[in-house]
Amino acid sequence: MDNRPIGVFDSGIGGLTVLKEIMEQLPGEDIVYFGDTARIPYGSRSKETVIKYVIESFDFLMTKDIKAIVIACNTASALAMEEAQAKFSVPIIGVVEPGAKAAAGCSKNNTIGIIGTEGTINSGAYQKKIRKILPTAEIIGVSCPLFVPIVEEGWENSDVAELAARKYLLDLKEHNIDTLVLGCTHYPTLRYTIGKILGEKVTLVNPAYETAKLTKNILKEEGLLNEKIDGGTYRYYVSDAPSKFQRIGGNIIRREIDVVEKVVLGN
Amino acid sequence: MDNRPIGVFDSGIGGLTVLKEIMEQLPGEDIVYFGDTARIPYGSRSKETVIKYVIESFDFLMTKDIKAIVIACNTASALAMEEAQAKFSVPIIGVVEPGAKAAAGCSKNNTIGIIGTEGTINSGAYQKKIRKILPTAEIIGVSCPLFVPIVEEGWENSDVAELAARKYLLDLKEHNIDTLVLGCTHYPTLRYTIGKILGEKVTLVNPAYETAKLTKNILKEEGLLNEKIDGGTYRYYVSDAPSKFQRIGGNIIRREIDVVEKVVLGN
Repeated sequence: MDNRPIGVFDSGIGGLTVLKEIMEQLPGEDIVYFGDTARIPYGSRSKETVIKYVIESFDFLMTKDIKAIVIACNTASALAMEEAQAKFSVPIIGVVEPGAKAAAGCSKNNTIGIIGTEGTINSGAYQKKIRKILPTAEIIGVSCPLFVPIVEEGWENSDVAELAARKYLLDLKEHNIDTLVLGCTHYPTLRYTIGKILGEKVTLVNPAYETAKLTKNILKEEGLLNEKIDGGTYRYYVSDAPSKFQRIGGNIIRREIDVVEKVVLGN
Repeated sequence: MDNRPIGVFDSGIGGLTVLKEIMEQLPGEDIVYFGDTARIPYGSRSKETVIKYVIESFDFLMTKDIKAIVIACNTASALAMEEAQAKFSVPIIGVVEPGAKAAAGCSKNNTIGIIGTEGTINSGAYQKKIRKILPTAEIIGVSCPLFVPIVEEGWENSDVAELAARKYLLDLKEHNIDTLVLGCTHYPTLRYTIGKILGEKVTLVNPAYETAKLTKNILKEEGLLNEKIDGGTYRYYVSDAPSKFQRIGGNIIRREIDVVEKVVLGN
């Protein structure tokens, strides 16, 4: 048993979708969430910059005496996982590995799509992890830069969302994928629109759900679960615009966010 | 006469639309361009963060022995102009003032629209400058977060662009504006789509053009023009992803960008 909190890290607010899954699957755990809102979006930045930001963010989380870190951000998981694991001694769980495993387990025709930011797709991280399990898989990655602002506008079920999704998903449809990884924390919000375009035969994999499941397993294996089985507490830190985080974030986790503290990192 | 270069600052690549106008109107001037690409977008950040970024960027530009600074970024002009002018001794020219002046000069029915980022619109900077000239003007500001990613996708003339523009511009159309300020460096690229929706009777004001004109006047007044009347040289610095800047930037200024150097600021 270990009653220290879990650190959950994201480049901004999207990681709250992962936090929400952790709240549901591990209701006794205390959480310290850090969103690096001063430096979003990570999705279009270079690998070395993302690594620098992740390490600075983890240095901050470590000051909160955490027992493990969940990287809720797909881009950070794709680009900085190895460097973070090498530098910090606590277990670090990213969204890419559990998302990739679930996709490989779902696919029947060995044809899998991945959608995410430019950084996530170009890193090839999901592709590599899936190929480890399914070496002959055909994998098609598509970056969808409009999806995050569409979700942040609240336009996820609009005609704009549908037209943009049709453009982005055309290639995946033609390749006849049977599984699609929603490889960015914001994308599950577009699930309905994406499902409408791809049809029922395509399984949509939500790495947030898989990540919470893996986190639970790892904590159990390492003897790090909290004694409490319910009543976890949540603290929120961001590097910019706490009131915006508070306002939008409450909608994502479906409960009120009382306090958000601003911390200044190396930026 | 003063043969030192002009510094042109933007949060990223969009400021090249302003640089292009300066190249055309001041072809003898040498330019040092700095794009703070590691910290884009400024549009959704808090005022204090934008001021910090602008001052760090100007500290860098000052090391290049510049004689004046043009802030090509609307958000930075709207949020950090006064602080920058107080801290640096060279003339500083922003895009907001010339854009606002042109709009006030154009409008016949005293009803003016402004589109820009959240930061620019919420700052009220354009609104205040226009009201100084036209105290009774009705001014409607609308932030359009999807426009930047649409332009960066190259979708400016697509059905997605048209639908998004219809949503954003609806309120402006109903208010019967006769003048619209394109208050973000990326937006002039959407000029055709916006014009199609608002119709010919609405004048679109491009602050980039007005800013280059003002820069020329200020340099002339202050005796700071370059001796050369042609053959200006251009140096480019960014804080992240120089190769991406080089690739996309060349299209904007319609000439090749040979070298882009990366500099690390306080981030």
